[in-house]
Amino acid sequence: MREFYLRLPGPTEIPEEVLLKMARPIIGHRTNEFQQLFLAVTEETKKVFKTKNDVLIFLGSGTGGMEAAVVNLFSPGDTILLISIGVFGDRFGEIAESFGLNVEKLCFPWGKTYDPEIVKKAIYNDKEGKIKGVLVTHNETSTGVLNDLVPIKEILKDHQEILLVVDAISSLGAIDLKTDELGIDVAITSSQKALMIPPGLTLISVSDKAWEAVEKSKTNKFYWDFKKASANLKKGSTPYTPAVSLIFGLRESMKLIHKEGLENVFERHILLSRAFREGIKAMGLTLFADEQYASPTVTSVRMPDAVDPSKLRKILENEYRVFVAGGQQKLKDTIIRVGHMGYIDKFDIINTLWALGMSLDKLGCEVDTLSGIDKAQEVFKEV
Amino acid sequence: MREFYLRLPGPTEIPEEVLLKMARPIIGHRTNEFQQLFLAVTEETKKVFKTKNDVLIFLGSGTGGMEAAVVNLFSPGDTILLISIGVFGDRFGEIAESFGLNVEKLCFPWGKTYDPEIVKKAIYNDKEGKIKGVLVTHNETSTGVLNDLVPIKEILKDHQEILLVVDAISSLGAIDLKTDELGIDVAITSSQKALMIPPGLTLISVSDKAWEAVEKSKTNKFYWDFKKASANLKKGSTPYTPAVSLIFGLRESMKLIHKEGLENVFERHILLSRAFREGIKAMGLTLFADEQYASPTVTSVRMPDAVDPSKLRKILENEYRVFVAGGQQKLKDTIIRVGHMGYIDKFDIINTLWALGMSLDKLGCEVDTLSGIDKAQEVFKEV
Repeated sequence: MREFYLRLPGPTEIPEEVLLKMARPIIGHRTNEFQQLFLAVTEETKKVFKTKNDVLIFLGSGTGGMEAAVVNLFSPGDTILLISIGVFGDRFGEIAESFGLNVEKLCFPWGKTYDPEIVKKAIYNDKEGKIKGVLVTHNETSTGVLNDLVPIKEILKDHQEILLVVDAISSLGAIDLKTDELGIDVAITSSQKALMIPPGLTLISVSDKAWEAVEKSKTNKFYWDFKKASANLKKGSTPYTPAVSLIFGLRESMKLIHKEGLENVFERHILLSRAFREGIKAMGLTLFADEQYASPTVTSVRMPDAVDPSKLRKILENEYRVFVAGGQQKLKDTIIRVGHMGYIDKFDIINTLWALGMSLDKLGCEVDTLSGIDKAQEVFKEV
Repeated sequence: MREFYLRLPGPTEIPEEVLLKMARPIIGHRTNEFQQLFLAVTEETKKVFKTKNDVLIFLGSGTGGMEAAVVNLFSPGDTILLISIGVFGDRFGEIAESFGLNVEKLCFPWGKTYDPEIVKKAIYNDKEGKIKGVLVTHNETSTGVLNDLVPIKEILKDHQEILLVVDAISSLGAIDLKTDELGIDVAITSSQKALMIPPGLTLISVSDKAWEAVEKSKTNKFYWDFKKASANLKKGSTPYTPAVSLIFGLRESMKLIHKEGLENVFERHILLSRAFREGIKAMGLTLFADEQYASPTVTSVRMPDAVDPSKLRKILENEYRVFVAGGQQKLKDTIIRVGHMGYIDKFDIINTLWALGMSLDKLGCEVDTLSGIDKAQEVFKEV
């Protein structure tokens, strides 16, 4: 039997093909073979970003990628507008503050999306043009809310001097992010989410406008230097040793994604997440996030008052070998978070609903597991 | 037949056991299993560092680890003394300058070690006590020279306020580095050298004195923050997603190293490197580095005037599937560099000598391959 089932919002399960490719003997990063591979895989990722911009691949976690964006685009004292709807939005603001930026924070209630009117007001009130960039999370992993970025695009239409910087860590490769169409200057993702490879890579798209900002940035930097990465990429290389084995994995995951078809991958995530949410509701449980903006990659489920989420997770782990995440910070005792991104299919949705029902049952909490499964399969039958 | 033989000074070959462990399904980094693993593997690495100090493991390349040391220990305007004997010493200085440090450079001729008298003078002339740290490379990968750190320890004996920061990237795990005995405050290594796993981890030891400096550092930082890493490590965790699969690999490589015995690993590297050097000389070739300080992990070989190193490397790659490195910067047309660290045995030395002899022969350069092999086996017979 399978050792366990990862229903975390990252790291996510890794296809066997990817695991095996990463187990081949390693090659040197200054060899022709690596250089051709690195150039080819970079091109493949651009299709996932839906961009003609440069994509830089660094050895680091997603947080490293967020830091890289901040230190390359801005200078100490610069003002940025932060749109935060949860833990990872807040983190983006903390990073900016760590490097001396003046962070104008727009924080919205957890479980909801942002209010475009408030963003609009903040931008329009900035008569002196102090705001150099808008930092926003595409898919907030801590609450399971997907931000629609179209309103931001509209607001920024008349403010071409402002950079749009998007944390797409838990969305890219699972949720359609039209980087160029939305005018996103920098989008950041990482390897261990929808890209289905282990943690270790952060991928960053950089627009022409972003490159102009890079030229002006006075923030001290070395490891994350975009210019050095770009100069090396032209030769299929990296300034410092790259994560060779993860690049093997990324090539394979790109093959899998493009074989299924990018639009099919997006549709699959929408379908599976909808089935999961409908199942959850039919079981008698409550969704935490505003359903209108529910994330296709992670669902937050509000726990019944009588249920301690950490006890529930223990049962799920010990009896069903299913790993889900708890809530973060103030949501610790309120929700569980279920990841359904990357290497996932209908069986995973049904299994997770069933294991969740059985575990709640064991805790003495009455839920209607079969109705949950029935509702999920109804969603599947629709297509 | 084997696809290729990596005789690079990193990435180095990876034992099959390590490759296979990394191919197991990934686990969550906030799980008990990972936390226990991370704590255990951190303890195992301390033995390799020969330290009772903390060891922090970051997702990043060795250069990232060097940056982490600089941004955590110092503040803009601080003065540090750099001891450079090659490319990687220079890089350490560039990193320090990138973060606003005042770098007093002591650069020594490539192929030689540093002159302790000059270092002593620099320290003793610093009447105002401006020097906050000495940055030095243990094993210079660009030239194949091992710096003996004992003289530095002696010089710093009466200067307890100065931090000793050592780049041990191409030494730790292959060459005996007595971190505590030498009074090293921060030693940095990375995964893809003697630790025999793919690139992606940087490991950093931090002494009590270094922690005091960390408290005083005013350099902006987020991703590389030692304090956050240390606070999380107490719970077996990391502030941001760690490279889970590489931690699986590190556990396995620690097992292999401790199974062989750390001192035996060091002895093996000394023996193999000596056999290789003797073989090279007996073939009629010249070593680039001062033999008195020749590195046990990488050997630089001066090319005969008639030989273009890049042509030689092409033949080695195409006909013998042996990958060696070229010279860097001003040594590009002068040397080749042969790595013999980590997962390596007597066969590898003999094979490399033989392939090198055959390839030089093909280029019309007369060398005595058999004498080289004979001399190497004589060295092996001594023990």
